[in-house]
Amino acid sequence: MAIRKPTITDVARTAGVSKGLVSFALNDKPGVSPETRKRILEVAGDLGWRPSLSARSLSTRTSFALGLVIRRKAEVISADPFFPAFIAGVESALTEEGRALVLSVVPDAEAELRTYRTLAGDNRVDGVFLTDLRENDERFAVLADLGLPAVALGHPTGRDDMPFVQVDDTHGIASAVEHLVSLGHSRIAHVAGDPMMMHGGRRRSSFDEAMREAGLDPSLVIDTDFSASNGADATKRLLDNSHPPTAIVYANDPMAIAGLGVAQQRGLRVPADLSITGFDGTDISGYVFPALTTITSDPVEWGMVAARTLLELIGSGSAESVELPPASLLIRASTGPAPSDSGHHAAHR
Amino acid sequence: MAIRKPTITDVARTAGVSKGLVSFALNDKPGVSPETRKRILEVAGDLGWRPSLSARSLSTRTSFALGLVIRRKAEVISADPFFPAFIAGVESALTEEGRALVLSVVPDAEAELRTYRTLAGDNRVDGVFLTDLRENDERFAVLADLGLPAVALGHPTGRDDMPFVQVDDTHGIASAVEHLVSLGHSRIAHVAGDPMMMHGGRRRSSFDEAMREAGLDPSLVIDTDFSASNGADATKRLLDNSHPPTAIVYANDPMAIAGLGVAQQRGLRVPADLSITGFDGTDISGYVFPALTTITSDPVEWGMVAARTLLELIGSGSAESVELPPASLLIRASTGPAPSDSGHHAAHR
Repeated sequence: MAIRKPTITDVARTAGVSKGLVSFALNDKPGVSPETRKRILEVAGDLGWRPSLSARSLSTRTSFALGLVIRRKAEVISADPFFPAFIAGVESALTEEGRALVLSVVPDAEAELRTYRTLAGDNRVDGVFLTDLRENDERFAVLADLGLPAVALGHPTGRDDMPFVQVDDTHGIASAVEHLVSLGHSRIAHVAGDPMMMHGGRRRSSFDEAMREAGLDPSLVIDTDFSASNGADATKRLLDNSHPPTAIVYANDPMAIAGLGVAQQRGLRVPADLSITGFDGTDISGYVFPALTTITSDPVEWGMVAARTLLELIGSGSAESVELPPASLLIRASTGPAPSDSGHHAAHR
Repeated sequence: MAIRKPTITDVARTAGVSKGLVSFALNDKPGVSPETRKRILEVAGDLGWRPSLSARSLSTRTSFALGLVIRRKAEVISADPFFPAFIAGVESALTEEGRALVLSVVPDAEAELRTYRTLAGDNRVDGVFLTDLRENDERFAVLADLGLPAVALGHPTGRDDMPFVQVDDTHGIASAVEHLVSLGHSRIAHVAGDPMMMHGGRRRSSFDEAMREAGLDPSLVIDTDFSASNGADATKRLLDNSHPPTAIVYANDPMAIAGLGVAQQRGLRVPADLSITGFDGTDISGYVFPALTTITSDPVEWGMVAARTLLELIGSGSAESVELPPASLLIRASTGPAPSDSGHHAAHR
């Protein structure tokens, strides 16, 4: 350090008292007279003394940081703008609080559990966000065992032992299906996300439900890993079908943009020949042509509220779960009336 | 904690020695006989004892974490896949080392400097990455003052007091211009990045130089903040020009994708009427139609090498700067021969 920071020794010397007394005064412990405490605090203030984080951390057992462990392939993270926006929201709440975010990106389940153990065992974070909830998620048991406060993103089905912050995305998928049905579509496909992830599974169930409610066949569904590459492949398979769909509901925007690319490459006009909807309302989705009809959530807001909830849980030992406004349909140019002749694809191929 | 972790007291009791001796043995300090040290280490191993991070941190003055402070608007971060990929690379190097990444996203210069001071003052990180280098960058003085080890992403012009890890992007822009010139284009525009950021400025200078070398007018340049929104607006302005360009070189992929959208909306065919190049080789750029000709760097590799360089600097007090393989042109479908009739735009409007 270019400028040496004042220590407790400096404060003690200047105030003319023992180091022990300074420590008691600064940590607000009994055994120091009000006058002495006042004088010590004044001297400490004059010298610009501040506690080191390590020392504070050791005495209070807090680390002044929150943890976010993301288990994704680098490729999927790069393609999916959700996390950068979510993190920006978390950061906006942490800046007010003077806390930091400790971020770990891990490749597999083993590294994921090891990371939670290290974060807790090393006292690196005071709490964590639990993302990408899965069926039979082993993380609940590990976090309970570690005693690490956690807030889930999304409602962990069948559990009530962890606060969560959720955006109801079932409403969004249902309104996309309703919108397409109102435009005359009946052969609607779903390029789903990862069925092992709760939000992938939930979007898929709500597609299924909305289709059945409209009296339509919900069987045209292809699972993916949420990557643009998987989105393109799924679109090719759907369009190669002997009776291809006239509309496709995608589980995220990058896959929908890739699907738009495949359709255009095959000479299909969007939306005249094929309607397309995305999910997330990413920035770029408004700038492709035609601009993407999508389901918007607000990941920045989600991050901010999740951070506040986790800080409350850490501070007070409990926190209320939060339901954010449901994801809603943003109708733009990639959806239109169903083509009158459903055999139009053959002519274009 | 559900399972109490063994403490130094437990180790001392089991080994039948004093706590002080255990502490000396575990911290590899002199004053303990080899036999006693061996026995204490065996007992500690058997009990599963491990040092707490706060205690280690206090005694060794390291925090086992690296810091990344990103000064961007949430909107730009969401749209730009560079950072998620870079962070994935950093994480892959840190996982091997058992360190964590502390991430801060800040809105302005004041918050940025305050964050570096907090990270250093609270001993939260052992070193930081310096991103988005700017002209007259005040961060160099602040980091030197704080004594915080740092590695710059990109070569800080005119400085040799900080190791850097750089991808030469001038080569990429030059090869994009050469590629377009070889296709017969002479009216080539540049939708530049933020001129206050060194990488924005450098891409702009290399565009200027490559155009002059080809004997062409380099004046068709519009500055942006790197956002898709700015990319779309710049494209509209260029196409509204009385003598519009036949090719546009964009400073990143999201702006190029937005430019493609604007061109298609105006009924221009890409590349028959307008050629377009991006920068970064993002995942989605290969799935739009037509697939984007772009300049690929490898942000995951960049993050990994930058992390290793910073760890070396922290560990040994010095580190060599690294030049990664230059960004290279990936020719796909969005570039083609210049239209023979340069007045073609009028017919399309």
